[in-house]
Amino acid sequence: MADSKTIAIDAMGGDHGPESTIPGAALCLKDHPKLKFMIYGDEARINPLLNKHPDLKKVSIVHHTEKQIRSDEKPSAALRASKGSSMRMAIEAVQEGHADAIVSAGNTGALMALAKMVLKSSADIRRPAIASIFPTLRGRAIMLDLGANVLVDAENLVQFAVLGSVFAKVHFDVAVPTVGLLNVGSEEMKGPDHVRAAAAILSEVDFPGHYSGFVEGDDITKGTVDVIVSDGYAGNIALKTAEGVGSLTGKMFKKYMTSDPLAILGSLLAFFALKRFKNYVDPRRYNGGVFLGLNGLCVKSHGGCDAVAFSSAMKLAANLAEHAYIETVARDINHLMEQEESFLS
Amino acid sequence: MADSKTIAIDAMGGDHGPESTIPGAALCLKDHPKLKFMIYGDEARINPLLNKHPDLKKVSIVHHTEKQIRSDEKPSAALRASKGSSMRMAIEAVQEGHADAIVSAGNTGALMALAKMVLKSSADIRRPAIASIFPTLRGRAIMLDLGANVLVDAENLVQFAVLGSVFAKVHFDVAVPTVGLLNVGSEEMKGPDHVRAAAAILSEVDFPGHYSGFVEGDDITKGTVDVIVSDGYAGNIALKTAEGVGSLTGKMFKKYMTSDPLAILGSLLAFFALKRFKNYVDPRRYNGGVFLGLNGLCVKSHGGCDAVAFSSAMKLAANLAEHAYIETVARDINHLMEQEESFLS
Repeated sequence: MADSKTIAIDAMGGDHGPESTIPGAALCLKDHPKLKFMIYGDEARINPLLNKHPDLKKVSIVHHTEKQIRSDEKPSAALRASKGSSMRMAIEAVQEGHADAIVSAGNTGALMALAKMVLKSSADIRRPAIASIFPTLRGRAIMLDLGANVLVDAENLVQFAVLGSVFAKVHFDVAVPTVGLLNVGSEEMKGPDHVRAAAAILSEVDFPGHYSGFVEGDDITKGTVDVIVSDGYAGNIALKTAEGVGSLTGKMFKKYMTSDPLAILGSLLAFFALKRFKNYVDPRRYNGGVFLGLNGLCVKSHGGCDAVAFSSAMKLAANLAEHAYIETVARDINHLMEQEESFLS
Repeated sequence: MADSKTIAIDAMGGDHGPESTIPGAALCLKDHPKLKFMIYGDEARINPLLNKHPDLKKVSIVHHTEKQIRSDEKPSAALRASKGSSMRMAIEAVQEGHADAIVSAGNTGALMALAKMVLKSSADIRRPAIASIFPTLRGRAIMLDLGANVLVDAENLVQFAVLGSVFAKVHFDVAVPTVGLLNVGSEEMKGPDHVRAAAAILSEVDFPGHYSGFVEGDDITKGTVDVIVSDGYAGNIALKTAEGVGSLTGKMFKKYMTSDPLAILGSLLAFFALKRFKNYVDPRRYNGGVFLGLNGLCVKSHGGCDAVAFSSAMKLAANLAEHAYIETVARDINHLMEQEESFLS
């Protein structure tokens, strides 16, 4: 944690490109003053923005790239034409050891495919997973997988439990994170085979979390556990459903509160309370999907991110890098595999 | 629709029993003035409440039962000891043709098991499904299955599409409802096998809805389609996640808005707008999970329901009964099966 870490940035990713990513990096630097940055993209757009943030400029190296991957490109096509793109070069910086993490707001499918191809899975990890933070009644929880793998087996889920537990230890600073398996009911008999088989293993093995049993969809926001483990099918549907409900609620609230003059006056009086509430539910605070299980940290920011949202994704990357996430996971997965061998023998 | 329908009520189900179910029935009668009721439960608790609602009393017959199924009983145990219980007798009223639908706020597992056992699946329907209404940006949508079947095949999903389309036609009054399959992405290649296989069939067959393709979790509340078809695993997780996000948002809003005097004053000024908003997001309005695909209508109300919430579940049952849901589904499933035969031959 003492030595300084370097974050590689795909400056061109997302709807706003450098206009979001550069001021986002500047915001991140305020929270993580020891960070250094490698910025990949069009220097004609990056440098003028960097000049507005002299503190950031001092600790950044800009690598000019001519190419960028479009957000609407198919992952397979993007992959073939990726050489020399800002996204790929930023990922390669991690692979080559020049950076400790890469953050991009670009094409999700391309980023996942490139990160897998360039960084590769950690030795013992069968499948990488996408993880993200959810607000809960008690604080925060992390959920994975959110869509990297539609079909998984019990062993994948158990590994996700390790990936998630280390994340919660490092990022939430919880000594022994509680872990739940997302399922349709809390009774032992319910749910798909792979989920029940994972429950049986997690009850037995020694891993960096504490297995608390099955959890249901509403337990995510209740904060019943620190880590919610799911296959990518149910996890992605839960994530998107939660986003949808949040968006619907926000839109309808605005509609009703601007519908009569008294309500508008009331909103003005409640301005600061509403602002604190908005800040609490603000999806920008929870922006950042982390690809876990690769030989390097890769964080995906929402494509529509502004500087604040991009800085959340960057802080996530910085914090995980500063707390040696990759190294800790390698050790804990190794410990898990040793137990599995003794299970089998 | 002209002739009067009869609803059987398990008056004892739910946390509040007759205190919710009887005034709930009275509220339902106001909207559906031609209804008749068969009320099952403890007459010593039911009759005094019925006396407060003379209009309801006039069109109700109370059947005294000594027994009721507890909400914490295991379904298997509840099933064995169910004879003569208010829940079972109400279901039997439908099976015997004395009532057109049964509504209960009791033990979900027991209700599902008893309804299946007593009412049985419609001739050609392989699996029943649980359906419920969601509020959307455009109005309302229906989603199924919400947890009756964890594992399903493509044919089950296609049948759910028919069950849901007829529901939307009848209950939302949409001529040709749009139908989406819940999945992790909108690209053709994505998702589990059973979902992709169902997509292929739905694109070909003639059924009472229009198949619009894959939808994601956030499409539920966007109102992208009228009917969302899912297996019970993803569907239940989406439902519970949505409930959880709604509950978290409500609680946090209340917390922030009562945290400073100006905000409290503001809330008072915005009282009517907030009330309209609360009414819009009020889960009581969307209360009622319908078991579709059985030889009879069975609606499950939330256990914690009050009279308003219970009346929503009852209105759902009344509307489906008045519009001959069961008969229409039987015809449309039959039409589907004929096409499948010609597919195979």
